[in-house]
Amino acid sequence: MPLENISCNKSAGGWHKQYTHRSEALNCDMRFAIYLPPQCAAGKKVPVIYWLSGLTCTDENFMQKAGAQRMAAELGVAIVAPDTSPRGEGVADDPQGAYDFGLGAGFYVNATEAPYNRHYHMYNYIVNELPTLIEAHFPVTDQRAISGHSMGGHGALMIALRNPERYSSASAFSPIVNPMNCAWGQKAFTGYLGTNTQNWKQYDASELMRIAEIKLPMLVDQGTHDNFYNDGQLRTETLVAAAEANSYPLEVRMQDGYDHSYYFMASFIDDHLRFHVENFNK
Amino acid sequence: MPLENISCNKSAGGWHKQYTHRSEALNCDMRFAIYLPPQCAAGKKVPVIYWLSGLTCTDENFMQKAGAQRMAAELGVAIVAPDTSPRGEGVADDPQGAYDFGLGAGFYVNATEAPYNRHYHMYNYIVNELPTLIEAHFPVTDQRAISGHSMGGHGALMIALRNPERYSSASAFSPIVNPMNCAWGQKAFTGYLGTNTQNWKQYDASELMRIAEIKLPMLVDQGTHDNFYNDGQLRTETLVAAAEANSYPLEVRMQDGYDHSYYFMASFIDDHLRFHVENFNK
Repeated sequence: MPLENISCNKSAGGWHKQYTHRSEALNCDMRFAIYLPPQCAAGKKVPVIYWLSGLTCTDENFMQKAGAQRMAAELGVAIVAPDTSPRGEGVADDPQGAYDFGLGAGFYVNATEAPYNRHYHMYNYIVNELPTLIEAHFPVTDQRAISGHSMGGHGALMIALRNPERYSSASAFSPIVNPMNCAWGQKAFTGYLGTNTQNWKQYDASELMRIAEIKLPMLVDQGTHDNFYNDGQLRTETLVAAAEANSYPLEVRMQDGYDHSYYFMASFIDDHLRFHVENFNK
Repeated sequence: MPLENISCNKSAGGWHKQYTHRSEALNCDMRFAIYLPPQCAAGKKVPVIYWLSGLTCTDENFMQKAGAQRMAAELGVAIVAPDTSPRGEGVADDPQGAYDFGLGAGFYVNATEAPYNRHYHMYNYIVNELPTLIEAHFPVTDQRAISGHSMGGHGALMIALRNPERYSSASAFSPIVNPMNCAWGQKAFTGYLGTNTQNWKQYDASELMRIAEIKLPMLVDQGTHDNFYNDGQLRTETLVAAAEANSYPLEVRMQDGYDHSYYFMASFIDDHLRFHVENFNK
């Protein structure tokens, strides 16, 4: 799997780089960004935090707006930010071009419904293909954590719950934690997975947490002034109830006055990076 | 001068807000952003750092991408980010719509040439109108510093050199320090000020530094892998020579491997905020 480097910026003593590559899982060309901390230049292998972004984002939003590089450099951890859906000519989009389905809105599932099943296999891409690529081409260990925002927070929690042996910890900002029971999730799951809701449960963090056997440290930050939280799209309380029912080690921090934006994430990203690095070191 | 608040995000314990207002200096409606640190909520008045952005930017780029809020909150300093030119219907743009003149490219001068002299008085706006507005409407002191990037670094250094009694310190990332002798500056100054280069000197930091009598602490960061530096647009060495000739307290840090991007600024913005706050406290 060859990689093409398309940009490189020195950042906090390390390097932000973008690459394109052919994805077998997604059946198209994909772009991702990686932040390599200064420790890599000294020949050290570092662990990796995978960051999954939200609706409408690409690999760029988090790297440009979250301000994570300074702390990643201090802690010696790499960050990988993939795109949020397959891309390119021939990749089916929302029929009306809506922002919440299709391009920029892959929801980290493996689609089974035509025409989306031709490309929309973001679950396989994030869980298997991308880490294999990263670990083959960059100075990283096989220690992994996963985090994300909103739709990407859903992806991070859901993927960690299904693959606890592959990650040391998981975290999220403003995650969609019960997509089966919110408008965004119902639209996406119907389009990608069909109308049989039994097939949705494998992608619903609240459903998965209630039955999880292997448990990971998990941290969620949720702003109280987040309009999507207040509109019922995020359903944080459902995840809290699932954690309580199954004694899951979930820490949810309700952050007073914060909204759904990158200003919120930039305010607390240092805590998330420290949380993941503490768990790498356990 | 009424202000209209158009956005508000909690950020690092403080608040990022955008406002619109009618500008007399610019003869149009303008938008700016302000970051108010948590100390303001406790009733404290804080000093202000004015941030001038570069070509093509608005008030948003710095606030979204520089990661300055965390340290501004820690230090207890406000940051004000104005737009980079007058805006709106009837504001003349570059005849070819180029990025380096007209809209998004006011160069912080008072234009004398038609049609630009109708609106392009960014110098008056930044030096007088905007601070008067900020100090009337927000919990801030009259302690001011000024900083900026590229075209905005030119603006920050030039304005501080001409108004040393109004600022405690000045700094810049990748500034255009000798616009009279680079392609960007020559195009802008010809268009805004006409062809008599005697009228350009009052807006050229290197010219001003050679004759400055009141001297301010001044910090410049310049990346060695900055393509605009290497293409001769920035001319850092001209400012260094002027400082040496006039014993001006200028610190220039050549930052190895860094480019012209926000990744560079985010890497060193904390140093600039600390520099300004140290000088407020002297």
